[in-house]
Amino acid sequence: MFELGAAARFIAASDAVVPGGFAIFGAPYDGTASYRPGSRFAPAAIRAASDGLETYSPKFDADLEDVGFADVGDLPAVFGPPKPALSQVSEAVSALLNEGAIPLMLGGEHSLTAPAFHAVRTAHPDVVLLQLDAHADLRDNYLGEPNSHACAMRRSLDGGETELIQFGIRSGTRTEWQWMRGNDTLYDLERLEARLSALTAPLYLTVDLDVFDPSLMPGTGTPEPGGIDWATFERIAHALWRSSARIVGLDVMELAPRLDPTGVSDIVAAKVVRELVLSTQ
Amino acid sequence: MFELGAAARFIAASDAVVPGGFAIFGAPYDGTASYRPGSRFAPAAIRAASDGLETYSPKFDADLEDVGFADVGDLPAVFGPPKPALSQVSEAVSALLNEGAIPLMLGGEHSLTAPAFHAVRTAHPDVVLLQLDAHADLRDNYLGEPNSHACAMRRSLDGGETELIQFGIRSGTRTEWQWMRGNDTLYDLERLEARLSALTAPLYLTVDLDVFDPSLMPGTGTPEPGGIDWATFERIAHALWRSSARIVGLDVMELAPRLDPTGVSDIVAAKVVRELVLSTQ
Amino acid sequence: MFELGAAARFIAASDAVVPGGFAIFGAPYDGTASYRPGSRFAPAAIRAASDGLETYSPKFDADLEDVGFADVGDLPAVFGPPKPALSQVSEAVSALLNEGAIPLMLGGEHSLTAPAFHAVRTAHPDVVLLQLDAHADLRDNYLGEPNSHACAMRRSLDGGETELIQFGIRSGTRTEWQWMRGNDTLYDLERLEARLSALTAPLYLTVDLDVFDPSLMPGTGTPEPGGIDWATFERIAHALWRSSARIVGLDVMELAPRLDPTGVSDIVAAKVVRELVLSTQ
Amino acid sequence: MFELGAAARFIAASDAVVPGGFAIFGAPYDGTASYRPGSRFAPAAIRAASDGLETYSPKFDADLEDVGFADVGDLPAVFGPPKPALSQVSEAVSALLNEGAIPLMLGGEHSLTAPAFHAVRTAHPDVVLLQLDAHADLRDNYLGEPNSHACAMRRSLDGGETELIQFGIRSGTRTEWQWMRGNDTLYDLERLEARLSALTAPLYLTVDLDVFDPSLMPGTGTPEPGGIDWATFERIAHALWRSSARIVGLDVMELAPRLDPTGVSDIVAAKVVRELVLSTQ
Amino acid sequence: MFELGAAARFIAASDAVVPGGFAIFGAPYDGTASYRPGSRFAPAAIRAASDGLETYSPKFDADLEDVGFADVGDLPAVFGPPKPALSQVSEAVSALLNEGAIPLMLGGEHSLTAPAFHAVRTAHPDVVLLQLDAHADLRDNYLGEPNSHACAMRRSLDGGETELIQFGIRSGTRTEWQWMRGNDTLYDLERLEARLSALTAPLYLTVDLDVFDPSLMPGTGTPEPGGIDWATFERIAHALWRSSARIVGLDVMELAPRLDPTGVSDIVAAKVVRELVLSTQ
Amino acid sequence: MFELGAAARFIAASDAVVPGGFAIFGAPYDGTASYRPGSRFAPAAIRAASDGLETYSPKFDADLEDVGFADVGDLPAVFGPPKPALSQVSEAVSALLNEGAIPLMLGGEHSLTAPAFHAVRTAHPDVVLLQLDAHADLRDNYLGEPNSHACAMRRSLDGGETELIQFGIRSGTRTEWQWMRGNDTLYDLERLEARLSALTAPLYLTVDLDVFDPSLMPGTGTPEPGGIDWATFERIAHALWRSSARIVGLDVMELAPRLDPTGVSDIVAAKVVRELVLSTQ
Repeated sequence: MFELGAAARFIAASDAVVPGGFAIFGAPYDGTASYRPGSRFAPAAIRAASDGLETYSPKFDADLEDVGFADVGDLPAVFGPPKPALSQVSEAVSALLNEGAIPLMLGGEHSLTAPAFHAVRTAHPDVVLLQLDAHADLRDNYLGEPNSHACAMRRSLDGGETELIQFGIRSGTRTEWQWMRGNDTLYDLERLEARLSALTAPLYLTVDLDVFDPSLMPGTGTPEPGGIDWATFERIAHALWRSSARIVGLDVMELAPRLDPTGVSDIVAAKVVRELVLSTQ
Repeated sequence: MFELGAAARFIAASDAVVPGGFAIFGAPYDGTASYRPGSRFAPAAIRAASDGLETYSPKFDADLEDVGFADVGDLPAVFGPPKPALSQVSEAVSALLNEGAIPLMLGGEHSLTAPAFHAVRTAHPDVVLLQLDAHADLRDNYLGEPNSHACAMRRSLDGGETELIQFGIRSGTRTEWQWMRGNDTLYDLERLEARLSALTAPLYLTVDLDVFDPSLMPGTGTPEPGGIDWATFERIAHALWRSSARIVGLDVMELAPRLDPTGVSDIVAAKVVRELVLSTQ
Repeated sequence: MFELGAAARFIAASDAVVPGGFAIFGAPYDGTASYRPGSRFAPAAIRAASDGLETYSPKFDADLEDVGFADVGDLPAVFGPPKPALSQVSEAVSALLNEGAIPLMLGGEHSLTAPAFHAVRTAHPDVVLLQLDAHADLRDNYLGEPNSHACAMRRSLDGGETELIQFGIRSGTRTEWQWMRGNDTLYDLERLEARLSALTAPLYLTVDLDVFDPSLMPGTGTPEPGGIDWATFERIAHALWRSSARIVGLDVMELAPRLDPTGVSDIVAAKVVRELVLSTQ
Repeated sequence: MFELGAAARFIAASDAVVPGGFAIFGAPYDGTASYRPGSRFAPAAIRAASDGLETYSPKFDADLEDVGFADVGDLPAVFGPPKPALSQVSEAVSALLNEGAIPLMLGGEHSLTAPAFHAVRTAHPDVVLLQLDAHADLRDNYLGEPNSHACAMRRSLDGGETELIQFGIRSGTRTEWQWMRGNDTLYDLERLEARLSALTAPLYLTVDLDVFDPSLMPGTGTPEPGGIDWATFERIAHALWRSSARIVGLDVMELAPRLDPTGVSDIVAAKVVRELVLSTQ
Repeated sequence: MFELGAAARFIAASDAVVPGGFAIFGAPYDGTASYRPGSRFAPAAIRAASDGLETYSPKFDADLEDVGFADVGDLPAVFGPPKPALSQVSEAVSALLNEGAIPLMLGGEHSLTAPAFHAVRTAHPDVVLLQLDAHADLRDNYLGEPNSHACAMRRSLDGGETELIQFGIRSGTRTEWQWMRGNDTLYDLERLEARLSALTAPLYLTVDLDVFDPSLMPGTGTPEPGGIDWATFERIAHALWRSSARIVGLDVMELAPRLDPTGVSDIVAAKVVRELVLSTQ
Repeated sequence: MFELGAAARFIAASDAVVPGGFAIFGAPYDGTASYRPGSRFAPAAIRAASDGLETYSPKFDADLEDVGFADVGDLPAVFGPPKPALSQVSEAVSALLNEGAIPLMLGGEHSLTAPAFHAVRTAHPDVVLLQLDAHADLRDNYLGEPNSHACAMRRSLDGGETELIQFGIRSGTRTEWQWMRGNDTLYDLERLEARLSALTAPLYLTVDLDVFDPSLMPGTGTPEPGGIDWATFERIAHALWRSSARIVGLDVMELAPRLDPTGVSDIVAAKVVRELVLSTQ
């Protein structure tokens, strides 16, 4: 009868899939969170915060109102071990790809990236994986769980010959750092801009929001001092905007809204989504 | 495609009006809040908290799943002076009545009760007004504004010969108390139970959530020590359940969710809604 | 030029001493706080919260606007060891008594009661001391400090033959309880009402706000479950109102406003002050 | 060299098991939390809050300093599916029983009660199970997980003919309530006191802290209005103190400290532990 | 008798207007706040936080103790529609100008800048308007209200040929950005320093505190990532200090203190006031 | 029996002193805190937060697991005047030095640095004092107390001819700044790196955590805008790593964990400790 409340959908999104456009969906799962859980509340918080943003981005002189994209809702909540949540994500991403949409997952915890990425890689075998993150997430298992958030990239790389580009990493075990050094996967900003400039393959971008400095993004499970500021993020978004690489999958993970009573973390996450959607037009 | 997130609708509510059933709508307005604003965020918070409740009430051995009722969304947000918000409420309640629904408004501030009540009184001229509240709300104006939340009952009584039953009031000016004493409108629990037992006229129930003690409901704009506890509320709900009076309008007002970081206030508000919906079956 | 902001003075208080009336002053000291400090912020918070109260008390059908009382400001802030703070309080209370006012101290920590009480006892040697508190405060010293908040009553009793009436106490050492049992100082509500009814001597009332249950008063340094609710406080205020005992000194101590983000604790403290001021008219 | 910080052990507890005495251990697991996780932080918070309590209970005229009991530390943290956490608890309780101690588990989530109870029942086959809780916890599974916190009592009853006594329950599904009514397991206070008075069998007491009203205990995952106050808890503790039933196992579960920024919930939990330890001397 | 509490006046300010000096006044109005209200609490919070600052600025080697300036209190609180609040500000600024003071308004919401600026422009027709802000505030109306905070600069420009200098803007509609680009009003830091260096006209400076990055200033209604840091603000203050332009009006708006429980936002706002007062000596 | 909870010891620390290695101890005292107390809770919070860090530092390619260092617990809590707390620190540092350890104090308030430094200077008379801080701390007394936190460096310099190197200072009185300018003790980053590069004397490093910008470190008693970011801290740590100066004493002071509900301040403090321990290997 009336419009449902402002928080029900990402600002300016339609509720039906737009072929060729992003399809936002929420994945409210945080069952392997080891330090401070709460990312299950992120999709609702990101939608609510989006309502306080303008739809127009001065950076890209583009407006969400002019873009065809959808917000198709949340996956059903699941708890406990990660397997059922992983399966849900896998099916949802496949279904969205079948409808011609570009999946845009709002986490939930980072372990959900692996099934999303695998479903995308099935459709785009040459997809490159770009990870913005504070943590390497390259453990083979964490506390015995191979599908932990701390293994998100290790699991994503399973079963394929994927190029991994890492940016913002500043925490990990010695083993993880040896692997990153050995495989030369860790980029600084200039090298990342150059790589994106040259890239023509399809791209899957996973954003663990703890890539931001905790001063700007305290609302995340494992904040790590020394992260990027907003200007750095905007340079990356700009590099994506200029790049001829095509984004075929996207996720924005690990917001834990209740850990930041100021609400700023929610706003940052929502603006990340807006800028990434507009940077790819 | 998927279900929209859990917070989008009150638990177990349908999205289409059910004739004869309640129709929940949100009225996110708090423009005259004099002390601590924030009730504009209440409808979304009540819906989100409802998701953590069981649908079954052991008190009434009844289940929301078995009840036909709707959640039709929010009125558009308005800011500033109260007039436009009052008009919206008036039109929405009239429209819902026309569709055969019983309006159940989630405030927003208490000043919105007057237009809702007036629309109901047009349809049911003999309606009795039952107010659960900490404050008399009988000022003729407040800081020059006749439609202030502090004038909610004074405005509701305008233009008719309505019986007013007040319960829980513990704050007001000397003038307001003189009026209440002169008109004998203030009830204690036993007298209220007796009155409800004898009542046959249609009933409009307005709940200002600050009727509860601030220990249980800190998340409201003007908390006032000395309020009722949950057991007292359940006795009132039970008296409604037994009464042959028919509820023809209902509102639950003045939750200010961000003032209570524990989230308990939201849960209390949601359970008030559940119990009132089930007490009238 | 304009009015200073609302928080600058307790609601309806004049800034000049009214002979025979209360004179509110703040004592923002919490240097011996052992568990959770912060009562130094209480006087400002109580004044700010008073602004959200009505000036009229329906309980006593009396209005602060009709009462002559003053708010003369705060003692200068001091830190570290308690001696200088104690001296300040002693001098301030003596000065107010000399001007014919009844001192009403807003703490600060409970150790400040001893010098205030001593100054009052000098003027009224037969004064009776009524303590509303969760803790016995009868230690001879605490962590080596004889002027600790945990010794407030022990120090107050020093140097005189004062009758002590204790109410609400539910925490102490075995030694303290043995003393209370031996001296029969601990009252239940009925006995307290009877004692106040019979009392003709001048009365000093010290309220440690942790006498309230932590559900209503979380904003205090050492909350202790099992405290009184608002109705019990109102019964005590009513007993004071009926009593022929004259209040010659009053303090309201140990609010730690920043420990309660809901602000309810501040409101309770302000309403305690209003009701006590009006109960003695 | 020095003492480890105050929070490291429950107040007055030794670090070595005392035969015949309680042995406190922490079980920091909340992997199936469906609504608001965080009970994994409870054991540390309860220990920290215990430091602000007196060791003496005026209710029982008894002092923790005179009681032989231990705090043996925390189980290693585990995440994700409940099975490993359940196994840990099972082994720990068995080990403590073998050393002659009475296990006293600080949760963590309520699902951990089942393995603790099973280990106790192996040693005491006629043990009676007393549950203080807001929720029935009698689901056979919850969201597909049979070891969910919502199934805690159903799982505990598995594999034996245990008498279950429930108190404080005010939330559940229609099916759960039908079972409770059919089996007559739900007690009111007078009946509970009478049952404890007559009881001679060994007793396992599980306290889900949400049995308390959310006004006093907001820091829990699923607060439910209408809970018990502190005086009711003290009557139960007193009934245990008078009873000839012997406590052979105890747990205090579901504190989620970060949900209550006032810290009162932690203090209530710590005082529950103190009173229960002293009520059984 | 004593000093009123520390929070009652900005640190080192006198209570009587000093001709030629700043006169601080508070304007506690936030009636059109569209997203997160609360700036009505800002004046009291800024004064309280000023008490924790040193009076000396090493940047300017100047001390508030050596400067003649006043804090004349708050305008009476008004609620609801903006008109009465706008009139109050207009009259207050005119009165202060008549007494020879430089008005320094502590908001309250940004819509109050228009009447303050108009009153100043009447006295100084060639005044230039410098806006530090995250938002363009150039809408002609917002949700139907022409005096919304979102229209603050549009309204300020009404009725005159004022030069507008904007800095820090990073959010607006496409229409607002087209206007800014067309009128070339948006400056970067170097251009702003150059303009201030060349400026000789009288200057009105309006600071919407959301010009700062939300990492430093979360306590504001509509935080926008990508804001300035403290060093940038100090460069602007330094440019003012060197400039021969004379500040004839100043405001510091949109602090919403309760949105930042750390209190840092209040401190930043108070230091902004201190530095601006000292930069103009 | 089990491990004590994760928070009981700094991550990877042994409980016995390792000769030549750091010995962490907590000093939970904040009795002279003038603005916002709470640093007494810091040692426990730093230990708890350390548990969420990796033990490996990619900056130094070093791992706490490979380093011999101890966490020997907390000094007993003391309250009120600073003298007893100062004596405790003095004795503890001397004892640790006698055992061959390098003292690493977790404050507590900054006044505790003086006795720690004096004990170290007795053992190493040529020790240089490096202060990272927002405040000069050079007052001779503060509010009459010569051992206030605001006098920490003045007291440290007493009784010796110590070289003082100050970095990050941005607040003080005119007198303090005159002293700093006269003695040329205030360094910028390049000069500090150069000085550390040339330094061969033993070094005592005191870190007042308010040296960080309040955006990153809101949880401290007197936050001061304009502080350093994490990258600057890492450059200093790197300069220490390259320097041939030997650290003979270290402290990390003034975290007030309860002032930052996001927990980020605790994490920053813990990472400061980790990086400083690893930078000196």
